[in-house]
Amino acid sequence: MIILVVNTGSSSLKYQLINMDNEAVLAKGLCERIGEDGHMNYKTDAGTVFDKDIALPDHGVAMQLVIDALTDKEYGVIADMSEIGAVGHRIVQGGYIFDKSEIITDEVEAGIEELCTLGPLHNPPALVGIRACKKVLPNTPGVVVFDTTFHRTMPDECKYYAIPWVYAEKYHVQRYGAHGTSHRYVANRVAELMGKDLKDINVITCHLGNGSSITAVKDGKCYDTSMGLTPLEGLVMGTRCGSID
Amino acid sequence: MIILVVNTGSSSLKYQLINMDNEAVLAKGLCERIGEDGHMNYKTDAGTVFDKDIALPDHGVAMQLVIDALTDKEYGVIADMSEIGAVGHRIVQGGYIFDKSEIITDEVEAGIEELCTLGPLHNPPALVGIRACKKVLPNTPGVVVFDTTFHRTMPDECKYYAIPWVYAEKYHVQRYGAHGTSHRYVANRVAELMGKDLKDINVITCHLGNGSSITAVKDGKCYDTSMGLTPLEGLVMGTRCGSID
Repeated sequence: MIILVVNTGSSSLKYQLINMDNEAVLAKGLCERIGEDGHMNYKTDAGTVFDKDIALPDHGVAMQLVIDALTDKEYGVIADMSEIGAVGHRIVQGGYIFDKSEIITDEVEAGIEELCTLGPLHNPPALVGIRACKKVLPNTPGVVVFDTTFHRTMPDECKYYAIPWVYAEKYHVQRYGAHGTSHRYVANRVAELMGKDLKDINVITCHLGNGSSITAVKDGKCYDTSMGLTPLEGLVMGTRCGSID
Repeated sequence: MIILVVNTGSSSLKYQLINMDNEAVLAKGLCERIGEDGHMNYKTDAGTVFDKDIALPDHGVAMQLVIDALTDKEYGVIADMSEIGAVGHRIVQGGYIFDKSEIITDEVEAGIEELCTLGPLHNPPALVGIRACKKVLPNTPGVVVFDTTFHRTMPDECKYYAIPWVYAEKYHVQRYGAHGTSHRYVANRVAELMGKDLKDINVITCHLGNGSSITAVKDGKCYDTSMGLTPLEGLVMGTRCGSID
């Protein structure tokens, strides 16, 4: 099956088209400065096909241009968009609602929308991306993968802050963690490399990028992680210095 | 030598009179609600001598009443205030200025005053306490002991935040640590109990009270500590929940 993977930011849309049979990346690229002057690039096995300024008034237009590129007669990698079996979206904040990846329904969309208060920079553009995909690929199933679900196994003493319980209950103030898709992948890969079952793995996984976090994985499950309710605490990152008020 | 130890809060004054020859506490007590309705207690070996509401318009009056109690004909523990060899004040924030305890001079007072921005809750009342003592005991030397000086040996990678250097240099934004007098005492006591030199001690010291911090002591010196520039990060405390924005 061919999967289109989409990661939407407030003014950007990263995409990769992957043939899951052999995990080959067929094409990938980035639309950026959406809603501003607009820029898009598109790469295939042949290298960069184009990298140009182009009008991107909104995410819907960007999504359409991605499909146009992927299915282009000259430099496309698929004949028709019906070849795309599903679209996968990475969602930063699954909060207290989502414990696993989900096929996108109206209810799932509403859940992601409810969580915009806990993921104010990330969930709103992700919703825009989901809706742009639905418009352009109305018959293709969409799947959301959350960065938080891997961390839902944390015990209460790691998950909750030492605050009055009413704040945790009423306002959902707790540690949700971040980069869970990465931590899950690394834990699984360690198990694979060591020839062990995931449930027999105790490891500290490090996600080190512009955003960074470390996670204690116990018996193959997240036990604790460095990212808190917000990115205030935890590791030093690209634009985050650690706990200063 | 007999030492009067003073710990001044914004509306309180804790005191202990200690005979350093045998480290015996001769008398101790607390003046509280200074500037409000006022309350004072006074204890000796005989137990609580008094515990009563009493007018405490300012720290100067409180200090005078402490001296009056200590030298009282009936229940005092010294004949005359000249028996007090020195007064010791605990200062929370010694910041970037003080690397060791100091005998109080005008210059030292000015330094403590300059550091009020970095210790806004603690340094101002400590200054009030120092000045009240000078008024009541003008000829008795005063010594300031800082909660931060034990932490001054932290290496740069523990001391500094990942912020533009100008903020560290111009605004003195760095980790100063807290409860250093306690961490120093515990490290010394561990060395003593283990029959080792302090410089051969590697230990994690825990100061657990209403305010709490832990310190990594390496070769007898502070290497890192959990309290940051402010009490935001680090251990959960009486009224501090850890890193929430």
